[in-house]
Amino acid sequence: MRVSLQPRYSDYDSRGHVNNAVYLTYFEIGRVYAWLEAVGHADPNFIIAEARITYRSPAMLGEPLVIEVTASEIRNKAWVWSYRVLDERDDRVVAEGATTQVMYDYVQRTSVPIPDDLRAALQRI
Amino acid sequence: MRVSLQPRYSDYDSRGHVNNAVYLTYFEIGRVYAWLEAVGHADPNFIIAEARITYRSPAMLGEPLVIEVTASEIRNKAWVWSYRVLDERDDRVVAEGATTQVMYDYVQRTSVPIPDDLRAALQRI
Amino acid sequence: MRVSLQPRYSDYDSRGHVNNAVYLTYFEIGRVYAWLEAVGHADPNFIIAEARITYRSPAMLGEPLVIEVTASEIRNKAWVWSYRVLDERDDRVVAEGATTQVMYDYVQRTSVPIPDDLRAALQRI
Amino acid sequence: MRVSLQPRYSDYDSRGHVNNAVYLTYFEIGRVYAWLEAVGHADPNFIIAEARITYRSPAMLGEPLVIEVTASEIRNKAWVWSYRVLDERDDRVVAEGATTQVMYDYVQRTSVPIPDDLRAALQRI
Repeated sequence: MRVSLQPRYSDYDSRGHVNNAVYLTYFEIGRVYAWLEAVGHADPNFIIAEARITYRSPAMLGEPLVIEVTASEIRNKAWVWSYRVLDERDDRVVAEGATTQVMYDYVQRTSVPIPDDLRAALQRI
Repeated sequence: MRVSLQPRYSDYDSRGHVNNAVYLTYFEIGRVYAWLEAVGHADPNFIIAEARITYRSPAMLGEPLVIEVTASEIRNKAWVWSYRVLDERDDRVVAEGATTQVMYDYVQRTSVPIPDDLRAALQRI
Repeated sequence: MRVSLQPRYSDYDSRGHVNNAVYLTYFEIGRVYAWLEAVGHADPNFIIAEARITYRSPAMLGEPLVIEVTASEIRNKAWVWSYRVLDERDDRVVAEGATTQVMYDYVQRTSVPIPDDLRAALQRI
Repeated sequence: MRVSLQPRYSDYDSRGHVNNAVYLTYFEIGRVYAWLEAVGHADPNFIIAEARITYRSPAMLGEPLVIEVTASEIRNKAWVWSYRVLDERDDRVVAEGATTQVMYDYVQRTSVPIPDDLRAALQRI
């Protein structure tokens, strides 16, 4: 799926670029929309195990940004979401990366298998 | 009380100044230390009702900053903390302001009077 | 003017409320849109001199938020923008406040009068 | 090198954990100290090309945190800084990761070899 971002003036650092850490927040915005679409509620029953980002080109003040999210790998208890942050005008790649999520039962405090309906929903995003 | 801040590169905006919103976070850092000193634990039993800031001079990258906190007014159910963010080298005033806290019972979901021992502790800070 | 906000998961603190400092960032989002509408470019030729916020009701995860901005006072070299953050569904007031801007010449490093065309534009917002 | 962090209340999300994106900001705090120690000034002549994080255990409100930084790989034009965020009391690993920096000439707008004195300084950190 693809979601327009609302960059904030405070996202930009003293070089006028979106700060490197902010991309993980952009990934999170995409993830929250993707999760809401997949399961219909906002409460995340997962843990982030890993994250990685490759910075392709700086995003400057005033440039409109969009984020793309796809489930690029689905394992038994974990799945990978891949992201691309793009300039909305020409799809120039600003940054891309991925996060690994582990399905988690916050009551039992243990990882659990991905339910079949969630698996199907993740594949549709 | 007086606490050294640890400015972050991401606190600075594209003009190289600490972003205006970050000062409320600096106030919060001072407030957390003050609260911990007053009551001995970190859990805040209050609600922030109001905040105000006056910006005196910009804080630039590399300048060491410190925050001062004092309880400037203590009423029945509320008190005011006043803050000054200073350049640690020469006490130049960067920003000053205040927040009003209302004592709050999160179980009963209502404001409550400030207990006597907290009142005494607030006066000592 | 009125602008929908895109709240971020990281805006919420450990009580599940939008953190008190984030409202100044929400004000800034409204301000950037207002400035762009008034002058046609994003570069802000002003300094923030003061900010104040009154917190009316907490904003919880999942609640859609909108910000309203109006120029509530226009003086010779400064003007006040007033803001309201609302629940987009029923206009419940979450927070309201204001910032005072001083027109500034960054080359001469001095405050300057508000140009007539900007004055007119500010009144239309 | 090893630097104590000053966690902020706004670093914690609605589960009471340090938000996943904040660790890149913690890495940046360590990096700024490391850079200052290596070259004696704060201005970073490099570009971040990649970042990755593995989340080991959640960091909760009130836990004191420290960051370790080491130059784990030094190539011709790039080097890798590796980081560990630890609980300061018992060195429990909270998160670890790395960023790849490319030496950059902001005037010529091109990557450049790492100067010998910087190479030596990076190895000492």
